[in-house]
Amino acid sequence: MLETTIAAIGPLDEPAMAAARDLQGRLTKPAGSLGALEELSVRLAGLAGTCPPPLPEPAAVAIFAGDHGVHAQGVTPWPQEVTAQMIGNFLAGGAVVNAFARQAGASVTVVDVGVATPPVTAPAADTGPRLVEANIRRGTRDMTVEAALTRAEARAAVETGIRVAGDLIDAGAGILLTGDMGIGNTTPAAALVAAFGGVDPAEATGRGTGVDDPTYRRKIEVVRAALRRHAPDPADPLGVLATVGGLEHAALAGLILGAAARRVPVLLDGVIAVSAALAAAAFAPHATGAMVAGHRSAEPGATVALHRLGLTPLIDLGLRLGEGTGALLALPVVTGAVRVLHEVATFDSAGVAEK
Amino acid sequence: MLETTIAAIGPLDEPAMAAARDLQGRLTKPAGSLGALEELSVRLAGLAGTCPPPLPEPAAVAIFAGDHGVHAQGVTPWPQEVTAQMIGNFLAGGAVVNAFARQAGASVTVVDVGVATPPVTAPAADTGPRLVEANIRRGTRDMTVEAALTRAEARAAVETGIRVAGDLIDAGAGILLTGDMGIGNTTPAAALVAAFGGVDPAEATGRGTGVDDPTYRRKIEVVRAALRRHAPDPADPLGVLATVGGLEHAALAGLILGAAARRVPVLLDGVIAVSAALAAAAFAPHATGAMVAGHRSAEPGATVALHRLGLTPLIDLGLRLGEGTGALLALPVVTGAVRVLHEVATFDSAGVAEK
Repeated sequence: MLETTIAAIGPLDEPAMAAARDLQGRLTKPAGSLGALEELSVRLAGLAGTCPPPLPEPAAVAIFAGDHGVHAQGVTPWPQEVTAQMIGNFLAGGAVVNAFARQAGASVTVVDVGVATPPVTAPAADTGPRLVEANIRRGTRDMTVEAALTRAEARAAVETGIRVAGDLIDAGAGILLTGDMGIGNTTPAAALVAAFGGVDPAEATGRGTGVDDPTYRRKIEVVRAALRRHAPDPADPLGVLATVGGLEHAALAGLILGAAARRVPVLLDGVIAVSAALAAAAFAPHATGAMVAGHRSAEPGATVALHRLGLTPLIDLGLRLGEGTGALLALPVVTGAVRVLHEVATFDSAGVAEK
Repeated sequence: MLETTIAAIGPLDEPAMAAARDLQGRLTKPAGSLGALEELSVRLAGLAGTCPPPLPEPAAVAIFAGDHGVHAQGVTPWPQEVTAQMIGNFLAGGAVVNAFARQAGASVTVVDVGVATPPVTAPAADTGPRLVEANIRRGTRDMTVEAALTRAEARAAVETGIRVAGDLIDAGAGILLTGDMGIGNTTPAAALVAAFGGVDPAEATGRGTGVDDPTYRRKIEVVRAALRRHAPDPADPLGVLATVGGLEHAALAGLILGAAARRVPVLLDGVIAVSAALAAAAFAPHATGAMVAGHRSAEPGATVALHRLGLTPLIDLGLRLGEGTGALLALPVVTGAVRVLHEVATFDSAGVAEK
């Protein structure tokens, strides 16, 4: 499934992009006055292969959840059981991602790809958040001691993400938003950014939920030790994900590939998402055409990854929560950018003089 | 009316802000992980005087429209009649502000405070954009030759803005958004920023709709000539607005004062809005407590003004359209910041462990 998905990912459609650029120039506004929204609308036309591209509705957030063997190295002060507890909070509708999703009219799907303790399924209403049980392993292995995953486990996680993308798109989603939950998951994200981005672990590692100085220094050394032990090859994305990644990171890479293969945009959240996006781009360089960067996470690794991907984030407000919250905040900007192409009058049709 | 409005504007409520800070620390997310949204929610609690503050709903955009005598100096390639033509476009629902307002569920009210040619009232549906006829003068005088307005005209415009704010809030608005339309209006905006901000006209003046190099150089010299002629005193905001302002700028200052007096937030759009906000803050320094900066306009004067006002914009996407479009894009961020205080579970209530 991974290979056929990769083979289905093609470049942006140039004629559709040219048509969108031309239309932007005829709408009742000074040329270029919508700034980054204009280029975004052009890219989305290229992805859809038609101008105007469809409105990115309805929106679906997929939160992939996993735990991490590297938690044993003391990279975070949060206990591991918080991952499962937060899944309960998502299913009960009490987390920030739920509040933002209700506001944006987005559905929330939580996918257990690697939680250490089986999450208790809350009796959610039919219209509420949904839990998909797809646990591949109850947490990764400690990457400082051995590979976090086997190649088969990493592939299973990527293919789970591809399958979730397909299911959500089959159910009508016009845009997918990445979400994540996993205590300790900024540590493998930093390792992925360092491996794919070719930067020193100190540049790729941040304070995650807000760790203190000794923990931060330890976290950098943990990333450095894992990379030294495995020396992952960035040209072998499955190998990188297996040795220093996480199950939610691998699944998110799959979600991105699945969206790109179906030519549906995928709105990226924070550092977990963009570290997974680096893996997706390593699998299929044209996958970047389907990516929209929702926001610039406060994590330094996010900025490194966005730069490598050539993506400019829509929102930059110092968020570092994850869950999909930054992507949800950016969703109205994406929808607005496309809506302009659908609804705004041209100089001709409105009888407005040009300069 | 201006004096009683100014007298009604007080400081943010400290106990409500302390309650919001405390609540942010108990919600199921790492402390500080919502970045700028947390401080925004605290400010809005201080403005409302209660925690949580009300959701900023429904939203009302007020677009003040005017023309400018300084148009005769060749500061823009757009013909003056575009102001009235765009009002027709607003009322027909065909402009970008309309598309964004529909998406955000915001009402649109167009206020003619100074259009040169009487706008043709379109037969809008009952639920569509509304036109308020409050024309004070059919365009300002050329500020390079004489004062743009008399003090009485400037006061009438400010009081029109105060009245519109009161009417919209009486009709139920939970947040006001600033909008503007006026061919040539970035020139008086630059003069206001230079006068209130104490910076050189070259720092306050931008390319507006995208003027060429000779026009840009002329625009700076026009602003410089007007300021040299009138030497406006920033401690006399009515005098500054009268000599080098515009009717829509003065009315926007009034809208901001009216919202602040009623302790309702006002979401600022681009350079016209923030130049008016400088006037509002000169009338009543506590008015800044009601201001939320929607976005950073591409106009350099906007950055100067935001810095003086101590405001950090929520969106920074290179927009330079005006109309209220940047404020509308930022509205979901403001609503989301408040929604978190209403809807997110605490660690206690959700049974989630803390670090």
